[in-house]
Amino acid sequence: MVKIGIAGASGYAGNELIRLLLTHPEAQITYLGSESCAGRHIGSAFPGLLGHKLPDCAIFDAASIIENCDVLFLARSGYFSSLLEILDNGVKIISVPGDFRFKDTSIYEKWYGKQHPSPEVAARAVYGATELHRDEVAAADLIANPGCYAVASILAVAPLVAKDLVKSGSIIIDAKSGVSGAGRTKTEQAYLFSELDQNVRAYRVANHQHTPEIEQELSRLSGRKEMLSFTPHLIPMTRGILTTCYGELANQMQTEDVLEIYREFYADAPFVIVLPKGEYPATKNTLGSNFCHIGLEADPRTGRIIVMSAIDNLGKGAAGQAIQNMNVMFGMEETVGLMIPPVYP
Amino acid sequence: MVKIGIAGASGYAGNELIRLLLTHPEAQITYLGSESCAGRHIGSAFPGLLGHKLPDCAIFDAASIIENCDVLFLARSGYFSSLLEILDNGVKIISVPGDFRFKDTSIYEKWYGKQHPSPEVAARAVYGATELHRDEVAAADLIANPGCYAVASILAVAPLVAKDLVKSGSIIIDAKSGVSGAGRTKTEQAYLFSELDQNVRAYRVANHQHTPEIEQELSRLSGRKEMLSFTPHLIPMTRGILTTCYGELANQMQTEDVLEIYREFYADAPFVIVLPKGEYPATKNTLGSNFCHIGLEADPRTGRIIVMSAIDNLGKGAAGQAIQNMNVMFGMEETVGLMIPPVYP
Amino acid sequence: MVKIGIAGASGYAGNELIRLLLTHPEAQITYLGSESCAGRHIGSAFPGLLGHKLPDCAIFDAASIIENCDVLFLARSGYFSSLLEILDNGVKIISVPGDFRFKDTSIYEKWYGKQHPSPEVAARAVYGATELHRDEVAAADLIANPGCYAVASILAVAPLVAKDLVKSGSIIIDAKSGVSGAGRTKTEQAYLFSELDQNVRAYRVANHQHTPEIEQELSRLSGRKEMLSFTPHLIPMTRGILTTCYGELANQMQTEDVLEIYREFYADAPFVIVLPKGEYPATKNTLGSNFCHIGLEADPRTGRIIVMSAIDNLGKGAAGQAIQNMNVMFGMEETVGLMIPPVYP
Amino acid sequence: MVKIGIAGASGYAGNELIRLLLTHPEAQITYLGSESCAGRHIGSAFPGLLGHKLPDCAIFDAASIIENCDVLFLARSGYFSSLLEILDNGVKIISVPGDFRFKDTSIYEKWYGKQHPSPEVAARAVYGATELHRDEVAAADLIANPGCYAVASILAVAPLVAKDLVKSGSIIIDAKSGVSGAGRTKTEQAYLFSELDQNVRAYRVANHQHTPEIEQELSRLSGRKEMLSFTPHLIPMTRGILTTCYGELANQMQTEDVLEIYREFYADAPFVIVLPKGEYPATKNTLGSNFCHIGLEADPRTGRIIVMSAIDNLGKGAAGQAIQNMNVMFGMEETVGLMIPPVYP
Repeated sequence: MVKIGIAGASGYAGNELIRLLLTHPEAQITYLGSESCAGRHIGSAFPGLLGHKLPDCAIFDAASIIENCDVLFLARSGYFSSLLEILDNGVKIISVPGDFRFKDTSIYEKWYGKQHPSPEVAARAVYGATELHRDEVAAADLIANPGCYAVASILAVAPLVAKDLVKSGSIIIDAKSGVSGAGRTKTEQAYLFSELDQNVRAYRVANHQHTPEIEQELSRLSGRKEMLSFTPHLIPMTRGILTTCYGELANQMQTEDVLEIYREFYADAPFVIVLPKGEYPATKNTLGSNFCHIGLEADPRTGRIIVMSAIDNLGKGAAGQAIQNMNVMFGMEETVGLMIPPVYP
Repeated sequence: MVKIGIAGASGYAGNELIRLLLTHPEAQITYLGSESCAGRHIGSAFPGLLGHKLPDCAIFDAASIIENCDVLFLARSGYFSSLLEILDNGVKIISVPGDFRFKDTSIYEKWYGKQHPSPEVAARAVYGATELHRDEVAAADLIANPGCYAVASILAVAPLVAKDLVKSGSIIIDAKSGVSGAGRTKTEQAYLFSELDQNVRAYRVANHQHTPEIEQELSRLSGRKEMLSFTPHLIPMTRGILTTCYGELANQMQTEDVLEIYREFYADAPFVIVLPKGEYPATKNTLGSNFCHIGLEADPRTGRIIVMSAIDNLGKGAAGQAIQNMNVMFGMEETVGLMIPPVYP
Repeated sequence: MVKIGIAGASGYAGNELIRLLLTHPEAQITYLGSESCAGRHIGSAFPGLLGHKLPDCAIFDAASIIENCDVLFLARSGYFSSLLEILDNGVKIISVPGDFRFKDTSIYEKWYGKQHPSPEVAARAVYGATELHRDEVAAADLIANPGCYAVASILAVAPLVAKDLVKSGSIIIDAKSGVSGAGRTKTEQAYLFSELDQNVRAYRVANHQHTPEIEQELSRLSGRKEMLSFTPHLIPMTRGILTTCYGELANQMQTEDVLEIYREFYADAPFVIVLPKGEYPATKNTLGSNFCHIGLEADPRTGRIIVMSAIDNLGKGAAGQAIQNMNVMFGMEETVGLMIPPVYP
Repeated sequence: MVKIGIAGASGYAGNELIRLLLTHPEAQITYLGSESCAGRHIGSAFPGLLGHKLPDCAIFDAASIIENCDVLFLARSGYFSSLLEILDNGVKIISVPGDFRFKDTSIYEKWYGKQHPSPEVAARAVYGATELHRDEVAAADLIANPGCYAVASILAVAPLVAKDLVKSGSIIIDAKSGVSGAGRTKTEQAYLFSELDQNVRAYRVANHQHTPEIEQELSRLSGRKEMLSFTPHLIPMTRGILTTCYGELANQMQTEDVLEIYREFYADAPFVIVLPKGEYPATKNTLGSNFCHIGLEADPRTGRIIVMSAIDNLGKGAAGQAIQNMNVMFGMEETVGLMIPPVYP
């Protein structure tokens, strides 16, 4: 049994980690960090967790984590001054927020608009796109879990770039997201039900901080600097991300041929489902799961390829992906505790 | 391992049974019945099940069920002529639709408006409100799983009636439901997204077929004929039922005293959570789970007690409840495979 | 042309007043009060109002209102020290929040849990349930517009009480509301999209401040002190209130007979639609309008009557009702500018 | 007063036409065609229209239309054999479905996959994008109202093409739509609430029939054959379309410079609102209205321009646009009866 600590337990990602780890056969939650719930059962923040045996929440305490945990999930940003100590005492860390995703912290500073809180820790992190970096993840003690938009985008277009199917610089990613990605503490007018219901809008156009993550990964795959356009949208639902990705085909191809390349590329990826020709992903088919569905269409008329991917932003886009990384880091089957079908309808 | 057959696999209840049984450690799905998907993986109806190893769907065939299954979940109505044969060959049956919930089939005929399809089978059934009839369920080979509204209502008011807290005849149950209860094949105008979104309405007022189920159970508890008003409403969400139940207190009581009676009544019921004073159930805290949340308020001003319960209509209201019954029927821990927290948010 | 001032223009009720008054043929908006938008077009708060000619917003200023307006809509609470001055200078006031709805301000203090801000002003107010008090409204210079839940409830049960159809004390009102009633500035966690979507819960059980409003009106109708139970619920939609009202029939009656009494009672009420037998109100059929739909069912089995009403909480429940009162106060046709069908779907 | 006939009154577009025309000061509805409601008030299909004086519905009858109407709105496809007769008798026609949008009916046949029902009528039609063809509309007796996606897309990118701001062939349009566009009679599983709620998916990728409409209009603007990619998506809301349009800038430009070009281009278009720099359109700001909101961002990093537009698919995308065309055809102010703010929230 892997002993699990979760910091940021009272946020949405924290709750999703708890939900998934409670049914994980090789995991035992031994520490829950939450300032707002300190001293109480996490059910006081998430009544859905009432009825489950869990340690009471505690404030963040490195010594306690070192004593009680094999791995710490950071479900929120912060605690930077304690992380090296935790790592050096043999506790692995899986970081869900965006802090450690860039080797080159100047990219962080440009897109996040602030100084990097801890370049030393960032230097030690492996980017946790498990499907692309399984061996590195297995050897890592610190994982930077990908952004929700980033993992959906990277899985959608990785084969295009890795197999040189599209012209460099031609990729455009248009993403539609449920609003839970904004988190539980962002109690701004913009996130009120009345404002978001029956509504859709883009935000951070040409300026979203997951853009350079996607570019970093695609550049590793192609060996050259990749640049793309990324536009996120909020749509009136809670969970799920759909990406619609456009690229100019380097050479004319048939839909079925591209699908075959995708199937091969993801042959060893149990959580990536390449849909049959003519079927397109729908986010609800992944809700609550760690799966990513991919569908595509080559358009001979315009010479473009259109690839779509669907994930649950809190599943494959956060907690599920993090647990998948944990499984690999601890030498377990990648799928342990994660072969959970979506909640449908 | 219990070998599981599911008839009606391509409906919502069928899908939910598959979802829950895929992670049940003591269950193995060996038969999936679906006319519309016969010969194909159930993923053709529910793409979210792609990636999971499951037997291909087949048309209903009693011989095959008898050969391959220890228990058959009937997730749809029908197949009446085969059920006795199946039972007599040692395959237990758990029936999810309303066919076998009344000992007195004249009640069925009155409220369903048609002749009972199989009184002989109905006579053999045990009403599967596990919390109230655990021993009978354990001894049964045929379970009539309660209706979704019924189980939410019965759990909400059972202690009131069993402990004689309210005046006979004074109970009113106002229920609000997500629309998945209508099922996947009812493709009528009334169930279109555009018609239900931003909308709420009552239906079958004073006339809903779950009413006599609730009355039958309450009458068993009190030993006298109980009658109540029940009004179902469709609200713009997919899953979840909230009941708001009103009764006239026989004697003035404090909220905390009634709560204490509820806590005792449900002390051995792992899936019933009695909320602390001042907290009320919200359906989302049960979504995707087998839990029922209950909260209440005694109102000294009017002399009424108001009890609210929340469930997932496809969980505790259908598939989860059915599996809970299976666990008890096969001598397993009641909670095996069902201690799954809700999907939140 | 009636010259209109609106204080609280940047709230939801303010926006709805602007929307309706922009197409009102006898109204001209001459003053918009909003602290947060002062000096700017209201389109900075509600971009949907861009493209419409409107006075820039200003901070609250009694002198300016007196100079420019024939009537002031108070779309928010406050400004108590200026109201008598405004009234005494001949500007009528229609107050949308709950400040002036009780003659007996001790009721306000009990249910709102604070001292009344201005009993002197309250004493001057007429309760603006136009259908019940048309003559008083016509003569008033200060209207206390009814609460959204209150108007839906009062219209639903007024004939029952006025015509002595139900036993005194037997009324229970179970209301389901969209969440826009919470307003735009209540940026609390509970009102986030992610928390409310796919969710329903009761709140302020046996304790909601619209209860005594309904009781006050019903008591006027029956001539005795009426008491009832009222339970509000939030459901996942933005606009709309459905009430489901239960009462014990004093004498057995047929549905059609009760309907006929309702039709007569509301014969002169152009905004109250009594639906045919067997049809029940749906909130979406009133969305964006000033209409109230009513349907009902007498249940011979239990001796109860079940009446349902639907309104738009921002229409008949706030801005529409307020304008209806204005029409009557200024001697216009009650329906001027308000015969607007709902937005459907 | 213009005497109005509407064929297809019991569909969503028909209902929206009625809603808008009931408050139009220069219009009088004299004929409502609906097979399903023949002989009855349209309130039997749309209870929200109860309380409004309207002619009873009738089956389609050219003679009656010729006798009673100045203009016929075709809110549904069909009646082809009668249209020339109606036109030749001086009744103008505004056709909302896709039948008459292509001069070259071979384009219709390619994208709609069937023979054109009436090329002779199509030849007579003017494409009703009022902002682009005001003079032609004024002179027309038959208008082909644009498709909902088409009008949102055309207004978004017209200035880019007309002013040669982007490279030919570089435009990609990613559209997100509420589901009311599917209509009320398409009672298929895919349009059930339970299937669409919490869900987003693309459909008809590289294959949607509004694509050639957009291309036809852009080609007229640029004088060369324009080709683009268009991808529609269904998102969980009822009304509204957001387009996100991408193009490669022919020359590097600043956001403010492009905005200025847009403002000039639409200087005489009262229903097109060009938003300030940094603000992006949200569909809810147009719900129920005839407005189109446009926002944009030039991205110096990638050399792309991203333009977004929002409309109500039943407003500017159908009924509102149709009435705008009627206003122009009958020599009225373009805005008469249409300066209606959106319903918000």
